[in-house]
Amino acid sequence: MSMPDEKIFPHATGFAAKTVEDHQQPQDLVFYSGWVRVYKGSDYRACLTVSTQFCPFVQRAWITLEEKGIPYQYKEVNPYKKEKHFLAINPKGLVPAIEYQGKALYESLVLCEFLEDAYPSKSPHIYPSDPFTKAYVRIWVDHISKSIVSAFFRLIQAQEPDKQQEALESFNKSLAALAEKVKGPYFLGDEFSLVDIAIAPWVVRDYIATENRGYSREAVGAGWKDYCEVLEKRDSVLKTQSEKEHYAEIYGRYLRNEAQSEAAKATRAGRAIP
Amino acid sequence: MSMPDEKIFPHATGFAAKTVEDHQQPQDLVFYSGWVRVYKGSDYRACLTVSTQFCPFVQRAWITLEEKGIPYQYKEVNPYKKEKHFLAINPKGLVPAIEYQGKALYESLVLCEFLEDAYPSKSPHIYPSDPFTKAYVRIWVDHISKSIVSAFFRLIQAQEPDKQQEALESFNKSLAALAEKVKGPYFLGDEFSLVDIAIAPWVVRDYIATENRGYSREAVGAGWKDYCEVLEKRDSVLKTQSEKEHYAEIYGRYLRNEAQSEAAKATRAGRAIP
Ligand SMILES: N[C@@H](CCC(=O)N[C@@H](CS)C(=O)NCC(=O)O)C(=O)O
Ligand SMILES: N[C@@H](CCC(=O)N[C@@H](CS)C(=O)NCC(=O)O)C(=O)O
Repeated sequence: MSMPDEKIFPHATGFAAKTVEDHQQPQDLVFYSGWVRVYKGSDYRACLTVSTQFCPFVQRAWITLEEKGIPYQYKEVNPYKKEKHFLAINPKGLVPAIEYQGKALYESLVLCEFLEDAYPSKSPHIYPSDPFTKAYVRIWVDHISKSIVSAFFRLIQAQEPDKQQEALESFNKSLAALAEKVKGPYFLGDEFSLVDIAIAPWVVRDYIATENRGYSREAVGAGWKDYCEVLEKRDSVLKTQSEKEHYAEIYGRYLRNEAQSEAAKATRAGRAIP
Repeated sequence: MSMPDEKIFPHATGFAAKTVEDHQQPQDLVFYSGWVRVYKGSDYRACLTVSTQFCPFVQRAWITLEEKGIPYQYKEVNPYKKEKHFLAINPKGLVPAIEYQGKALYESLVLCEFLEDAYPSKSPHIYPSDPFTKAYVRIWVDHISKSIVSAFFRLIQAQEPDKQQEALESFNKSLAALAEKVKGPYFLGDEFSLVDIAIAPWVVRDYIATENRGYSREAVGAGWKDYCEVLEKRDSVLKTQSEKEHYAEIYGRYLRNEAQSEAAKATRAGRAIP
């Protein structure tokens, strides 16, 4: 039997591991992703540990990088450690963050928009060119941030059955509002956009709510399941995905409401997610 | 003595009233603002009532319209009534909203960005053209939404002294983080931007916190007071401002934690402001 920490994979696992491997060379753009160490298998005392990219917010920016084929260097930090060098990049101490020609930026949605603006020749574009449709995309991205993401955290952190029920209803309701607007296959129809990028990381993690909180895609309403399946098969989503088994332990802390992330603490305190 | 409702001004009061008067003609762009009826003077039984534009979110979009000199028709709705015709424009039933060539959009910050995109020749521009600085502006607009605005509502709605103290500390802390980045006279220096637009409506309403919750601009930190004074003197801010006395009753409901707006209810329930 090997010793603890002996076999730590140096970075993200699953398809994501290969993507990470392909982005080790220095570039103008450094992409800061988060990792945490998880135990392999369900046994807490298991000796094999791996580190894994787990963060849905990171995945948004990562999807955008991969969609556009922007050259970047992937670097992992443990955002829970709040190390000085990383606080100099993002004073909030959260991933994702980037350094672009030595200057730092953060916030997943800000990063997606920055990548669009800083690499105007790289397609696909995350916004349609027509100002009205662009604003329409923004309205629904705002809905994802304010309603869907916060309901997801409330749902997985809720402990009492009535709180879980209430959170499940909010989650379903906020998803249904979005589902109603999905033209298919993507939100805007054939065109992939920031709405798809903003929601995809929660779609690929929704099995946590299915396995533990009675969520089902079918219950959301017509078309939602189809849309989810389209998103989870998108290349850029697959390439930025870690193995499901590695998410299990991280989300276990949320499911027991023991997580100490800023998002978890804000959810517990009844505050907006930072 | 005149009878109740006899002397209702048909629209916003103060400098704003004049701006409203100047924007009654039909235009491609209809701007939906909110009004509520308030009693003139401090006596609730007073017979003179006026209606007033009161909403800080409306003011953001309105400042942008005025800054750019975009032709618009001003229309007032009472957002608390959730009338069917307005729900067809914004299903959330919130002001501000617009109709542009017959199509509806809402969310204050989305509207500001839409006005920038749809009228590219109208200056000043709310974003700098350099992608990095644009993203930097977005980071601070996000900070205003997530931290400052939510702390303001928590502060004015808090009833118990310890809750008020905690909220005042959050409010000061979130303002200080912004203050530190203000180059002066505006956030970016000489250039007026969306950061200034996003925060200005709370600056002109901060006297509510001063008079009732012990807030002071001086306590926030170096330069904050100067920045506030620059913002409140900006033409577009003055032109979209109602008379202070008319805000008093509206905010009285918040100060007693009796307000039934979506923002007030969300704050009470410990949720993000919709
Ligand atoms: N609003 C941020 C949220 C980022 C965030 O919460 N990231 C988490 C990982 S999923 C993090 O860095 N957590 C460290 C902590 O909470 O201390 C964004 O959209 O980028
Ligand atoms: N997030 C929205 C908030 C708008 C908002 O809350 N508007 C208030 C007036 S200040 C409203 O319409 N309230 C009606 C209600 O709460 O029912 C925005 O930025 O436009």
